[in-house]
Amino acid sequence: MASPEIEALTQALSRIPGLGPRSARRAVLHLLKKREAALVPLLTALGAVEERLETCSTCGNIDTANPCAICADPRRDAGALCVVEEVADLWALERSRLFPGRFHVLGGRLSALEGVRPEDLTIDALVRRIEGGGVDEVVLAMNATLEGQTTAHYLAERIERFPVRVTQLAHGLPVGGELDYLDEGTLAQALRARRPVV
Amino acid sequence: MASPEIEALTQALSRIPGLGPRSARRAVLHLLKKREAALVPLLTALGAVEERLETCSTCGNIDTANPCAICADPRRDAGALCVVEEVADLWALERSRLFPGRFHVLGGRLSALEGVRPEDLTIDALVRRIEGGGVDEVVLAMNATLEGQTTAHYLAERIERFPVRVTQLAHGLPVGGELDYLDEGTLAQALRARRPVV
Repeated sequence: MASPEIEALTQALSRIPGLGPRSARRAVLHLLKKREAALVPLLTALGAVEERLETCSTCGNIDTANPCAICADPRRDAGALCVVEEVADLWALERSRLFPGRFHVLGGRLSALEGVRPEDLTIDALVRRIEGGGVDEVVLAMNATLEGQTTAHYLAERIERFPVRVTQLAHGLPVGGELDYLDEGTLAQALRARRPVV
Repeated sequence: MASPEIEALTQALSRIPGLGPRSARRAVLHLLKKREAALVPLLTALGAVEERLETCSTCGNIDTANPCAICADPRRDAGALCVVEEVADLWALERSRLFPGRFHVLGGRLSALEGVRPEDLTIDALVRRIEGGGVDEVVLAMNATLEGQTTAHYLAERIERFPVRVTQLAHGLPVGGELDYLDEGTLAQALRARRPVV
């Protein structure tokens, strides 16, 4: 129906998570109809990123510079290191703007099911960063999943021989969470970690 | 947080219908992580389309050639002309693969509210195409909205002086439609257009 070029673009867009074949077609139509306002800016932005894309060799963040903007920023506290599973988690924490330190991206989580072993993650590099000195606190910011928590336990054991404080994110009720709708695991965590009302 | 290039890409993607700021960020991460499998193909496809984008000067379809693939295809029945509001409607009909003829894109619908008058649409061009001869049937495939139907009525009046058959899409129950969930307008149309059971 459409030309091969338009078909190829629809295909490429439909592989983006969140866009199925149907919404990819709608997106293509939008780009075709708004050539100057949508297609050209997207093309330019994509080209600029493609040209300069780098993985930070220090923390594993993806950026257009190496070291990445976070590792290169002298205002960031080099003494606090937040360990995350994926770059997406790093970005999520950065959006909260609450963590003043630096990051370390593991590149995944330990998983017996998926055959992910410690040597498949950047754990050795993490240990070397801590060994190198200057780190006071390591925040284990794994996902609150079985595999995330297994990974956190494993990391805590690997790190315990160093003179650093090892912490992890609190578990409990999410903001806006209604008890009636929360799973028992979350409720159990929230109850176990209950704190005195001041 | 992210570099200006990555921010610009997130911005450009978030303007695509169906992608909000949140899913645009997820899309960007996907593209960054799958540089060779996702980012480069999308960039290539987008570039190819941008370079060759054309509006068909015969029917108004958007394609990478002028005349478009449909108008240039000698197997399409030049005697049947299907009039649609937008390119998106043309594509939707093409996906059904049921219409063997050619198209005419109006570029919108008459609307007193939005100030769209006949001269804002490609109605004169449509009349000239019919005047040119060779057309036996004009299918008015407007949306089943008030404005779409107003447009269809207006077109029918403009065309009636030509020796062509003017038809319009049937209205009634959509496939899978449950009476209980359908609006009264659809039910009224379906009842009015009821047909004998053979």
